[in-house]
Amino acid sequence: MDHLSSTPKHPLLASLPDASPLKDFSASQLEQTAAEIRDVLCNLLATRTAHFASNLGVVELCLALHCEFDFRKDRLIWDTGHQIYPHKLITGRYHDFPSIRTQGGLMGYPNPDESIYDLFMTGHAGSSVSTAVGLRSGDQLADQRDRRTVAVIGDGAFPSGIVFEAMNHAGETQNDMTIVLNDNKMSICHRVGAVAQYLDRLRGNPFYTGLKQEVVKLLDQIPMFGDPVERALAQMKEGVKAGLLGGMLFEELNIRYVGPIDGHDIPLLRKYLAMVKGMSGPVLLHVVTEKGHGYKPAAADPVFFHTPPAFEDRDGIPVHKSSSGMPPFTTHARDAIAGELKANPRASVITAAMCQGNKLEPVREQFPDQFFDVGICESHAVAFAAGQAKTGARPIVDIYSTFLQRSYDQIFQEVCLQDLPVVFMMDRAGLTAPDGPTHHGTYDIGYMRLFPNMIVAAPAYGEEVGMMLKFAMSQDHPLGMRYPKASAMKSDQPLPEVELGKAHWVRTGSDGVIVAYGAMLENALEAAEMLQGELDVAVVNARFVKPIDEDMVRQSIEQGRFVLTVEENTIVGGFGAAFLESANAQRLETRNVEVLGLPDRFVEHGDRDGLLDQCGLSPRAIADRCRQAVQGATPVA
Amino acid sequence: MDHLSSTPKHPLLASLPDASPLKDFSASQLEQTAAEIRDVLCNLLATRTAHFASNLGVVELCLALHCEFDFRKDRLIWDTGHQIYPHKLITGRYHDFPSIRTQGGLMGYPNPDESIYDLFMTGHAGSSVSTAVGLRSGDQLADQRDRRTVAVIGDGAFPSGIVFEAMNHAGETQNDMTIVLNDNKMSICHRVGAVAQYLDRLRGNPFYTGLKQEVVKLLDQIPMFGDPVERALAQMKEGVKAGLLGGMLFEELNIRYVGPIDGHDIPLLRKYLAMVKGMSGPVLLHVVTEKGHGYKPAAADPVFFHTPPAFEDRDGIPVHKSSSGMPPFTTHARDAIAGELKANPRASVITAAMCQGNKLEPVREQFPDQFFDVGICESHAVAFAAGQAKTGARPIVDIYSTFLQRSYDQIFQEVCLQDLPVVFMMDRAGLTAPDGPTHHGTYDIGYMRLFPNMIVAAPAYGEEVGMMLKFAMSQDHPLGMRYPKASAMKSDQPLPEVELGKAHWVRTGSDGVIVAYGAMLENALEAAEMLQGELDVAVVNARFVKPIDEDMVRQSIEQGRFVLTVEENTIVGGFGAAFLESANAQRLETRNVEVLGLPDRFVEHGDRDGLLDQCGLSPRAIADRCRQAVQGATPVA
Repeated sequence: MDHLSSTPKHPLLASLPDASPLKDFSASQLEQTAAEIRDVLCNLLATRTAHFASNLGVVELCLALHCEFDFRKDRLIWDTGHQIYPHKLITGRYHDFPSIRTQGGLMGYPNPDESIYDLFMTGHAGSSVSTAVGLRSGDQLADQRDRRTVAVIGDGAFPSGIVFEAMNHAGETQNDMTIVLNDNKMSICHRVGAVAQYLDRLRGNPFYTGLKQEVVKLLDQIPMFGDPVERALAQMKEGVKAGLLGGMLFEELNIRYVGPIDGHDIPLLRKYLAMVKGMSGPVLLHVVTEKGHGYKPAAADPVFFHTPPAFEDRDGIPVHKSSSGMPPFTTHARDAIAGELKANPRASVITAAMCQGNKLEPVREQFPDQFFDVGICESHAVAFAAGQAKTGARPIVDIYSTFLQRSYDQIFQEVCLQDLPVVFMMDRAGLTAPDGPTHHGTYDIGYMRLFPNMIVAAPAYGEEVGMMLKFAMSQDHPLGMRYPKASAMKSDQPLPEVELGKAHWVRTGSDGVIVAYGAMLENALEAAEMLQGELDVAVVNARFVKPIDEDMVRQSIEQGRFVLTVEENTIVGGFGAAFLESANAQRLETRNVEVLGLPDRFVEHGDRDGLLDQCGLSPRAIADRCRQAVQGATPVA
Repeated sequence: MDHLSSTPKHPLLASLPDASPLKDFSASQLEQTAAEIRDVLCNLLATRTAHFASNLGVVELCLALHCEFDFRKDRLIWDTGHQIYPHKLITGRYHDFPSIRTQGGLMGYPNPDESIYDLFMTGHAGSSVSTAVGLRSGDQLADQRDRRTVAVIGDGAFPSGIVFEAMNHAGETQNDMTIVLNDNKMSICHRVGAVAQYLDRLRGNPFYTGLKQEVVKLLDQIPMFGDPVERALAQMKEGVKAGLLGGMLFEELNIRYVGPIDGHDIPLLRKYLAMVKGMSGPVLLHVVTEKGHGYKPAAADPVFFHTPPAFEDRDGIPVHKSSSGMPPFTTHARDAIAGELKANPRASVITAAMCQGNKLEPVREQFPDQFFDVGICESHAVAFAAGQAKTGARPIVDIYSTFLQRSYDQIFQEVCLQDLPVVFMMDRAGLTAPDGPTHHGTYDIGYMRLFPNMIVAAPAYGEEVGMMLKFAMSQDHPLGMRYPKASAMKSDQPLPEVELGKAHWVRTGSDGVIVAYGAMLENALEAAEMLQGELDVAVVNARFVKPIDEDMVRQSIEQGRFVLTVEENTIVGGFGAAFLESANAQRLETRNVEVLGLPDRFVEHGDRDGLLDQCGLSPRAIADRCRQAVQGATPVA
């Protein structure tokens, strides 16, 4: 380690071409590396919103894993992926690290395009164990059994149903693999659920010392016989083993449980990783970490520090930089939900561990009996809502657009097939900017409108969120409404009542019509403003994609020389497609209709305005398309 | 029970207006009712394909439940729902029962439109516990705590992830509810997975007698102290309890476990149902039943008798009525899969407990190392496939169209986002006829084409299945192909090679063009034949919806006086929509394009040809639309 890089602040990190030298590091060098990682995290993350506490918590675990495995050939999956920063820092990306979560820079999640150390681009929780079982199985098909497989999954993600499905499979096939349960006692918010309570009890057990195993070995030497008394004894013996070893939830599924161990003790972690690596069959290593470890304010308030806004550290006290602008759609949604819960004691709100992201904490405080956080269990969230609705309750499922994909079949069977009035508030619909493609919600218009009985809508103004929710709560059918992670504009005039399948003509104009869906109305109006004096463009707030306003479709096609539909969603099967479907059903000419939306490729992370411009959805880009449309307009037959 | 109905063969069943008189039946009357139910099932089910063995297995459980609860107000959810027949027979539907699974008759699944005793229309597995938690929560919001809640779930459905999510929630909230685990040692096929192995062990425990509880009570009286030795003792005590009581998998999640008990002993069932009904918090009652109980051939071969073809009973030996017609798409798919597995030892096939439905048994026998049945765990199936694909393996996920909705998020994140070459064989795409809306696969065109990187295709001929699979296996991207539960036509001439995004012009014609997607080609060709001499209609086998053949779109619009697109899928966002999108992107006139497909409502169960005709997709209906299209055709501008 003589060749220190030109970044003397973090000499060890700067010296690592990839993770392979780590295994030759001394214990103190590893400690120093951990300290350097924490320094990078604390300094850099103060400059922008990023995942913070979860990354501080896995520093030692990450180092120990890379010491004991060689993930250039061994297989490592970080579940959810937001705890990937230390891994990036020691796998050749230290120098690029300042670019993280900025356009063109490193992604805030694993990204196979960045490094061979990243196998899967992840962001949704819970699939790591399944993927790992598949990786192991694939390596066996290729007869590459020397490649080890490791999945690291947090306790927050653990209750996701797919984890149980994967354990059910792994427990039977007994393929060799290590599941590291990174137990930081937290989901993104304070964690909920019986699994969490179970882990609390397990953590109460003394840290693993090896002693307990000896007792079990002794017990195993007691011979067993066939008669009932002996069978009862044998059962008791198993029971004693269970009590001694803990982890029966896993052991019952034929997954060996080892732990709990201290997740901030690198030599101990290495010792146990080396041990479980040598075991055959699936093994779960229970590692206890502290979210925010090493930075006091973060360890004290890990919910806030999950993805804190940019802050400065002034003598150990984080001082937040103030943000400006209009309140985001999320705030409007939260306030509207609170209003509905207040108006109707049988109204409820259901979140899948996104209490913080959806700003629902005050709602939880104010309406504890009507607030339900089911953990990262979206499938259950929706079926649970359907059960509530069947009794006459009025549930609101408040969930990110992209995560709602996890309950697609429950939307179909439990909600639409029964025609139950469940309301879906799809937050983060559109480009979530710094998070990137795992978090962009850019398919919901297409997937929500497929099922019968569903009403699909979007507010364009902040105040329209509450109007639309009130409308939703008056309907006897399921309704999904979407809005982006963005500030919401305010209307300068009173908005018309929300009426099923009716659009709102916001601005008249004779040269052409821009039909905007949801928050894209703001950009459409700005585009129309820009064209003032040049082109006289009408602007429509579509409000509904299902049922779509057929009169609006006809009028907009007949009225102007062109129609542009604008949506922050993939153009495949989205609002524009629905517009074309309606026009076709009405036998209307559509050659002068142009569909603007996101392209049929995964859009990277970056700044939302920048990404929108790149995708042709900025006011400037929309205005340009209007100019082109007028030029190329085919006369309507 | 003096007033026997005019159907003397089943006097008790015929006398029941609903289930309420059952609680006053004597033990022998209940036994007789059970015998009558079995007689109805055996006689009627011999006449048609229906769920058989599962219904025979729950006769006593169903009776006992209705004795101990009043499901006009209490809440009962039958998971999956194919075991609903005894329930229908005793809840006022005995006289209508001969119509079951026929058009206009009773549905083969729970149906709220038939009876207040059916709360949810189900068919997909695993959601009952979630729904029940929601029902209970809703009743609490309405302050109707006297309504009891019961979910009955089979051991096959139990490993579904959503069950774990629901237990995670119920274990924490401790809402009163009864989960009846109907353990018949079977999924639809022979069951797999660690949960199954666990239940095998539990069943090995002596049947529950009450004695064990006494021991536990005694143990609970041992005082506990705080020091380490005492803590170890306390742990040991818990361990002994675990060994004595069994069910630690549930107990660890704070769900009380009672069982196993004999599921064919009505008085015993009643005794334990009465007991668990009085317990607070969630309780799981483990009931052991025999699939096919009471009909020897079915108990001996419950896989075959899950949904046997119509058969006659000749002296206790079932004789199958022969079926005729061309081999179904499923057989072609199976043979094609076997061919791919033979050609490439790193090719694999993954099923989610549909080994029988997908006719994969011979593949399982012939290629045991390349065959994976993960149980009813579709989410895991897809993430597992993605893991395999990452290693260079070539997984084929063979799954029903409607069940694939259960892995929608894994299709997004684990497959499309990584651009991994996983092949989806979507069986049962279209109307599954007697099963009805829970099983119709009528949304997959819309939902599969939304995600980038996905290729979406459909074979039209039997021999095209293999060609398309071979093509799929040569691609570096995910590909989904769909085909219905129907016999596949054979081409009378050699088919052209499958080429990405290229359609096949099967028949020329100058008056108009029918563009058929997948198996609808058969009806399109028949329609064209019917019109012979009247109209000269070209027919296209579209083959791909993504990427769609843009040249084909243009040519078909430019060539004839009309274009009809035909698909066995909802018209919302489906093939026709994709056709319109492509035409719009090419600035083509589409007023003469008409989209035929399934309506935007849930299509009931019935005969496939009858349903297709009703939806305007029979050859006759398509021919009629051609005639109308020519009449009303607008001249192309």
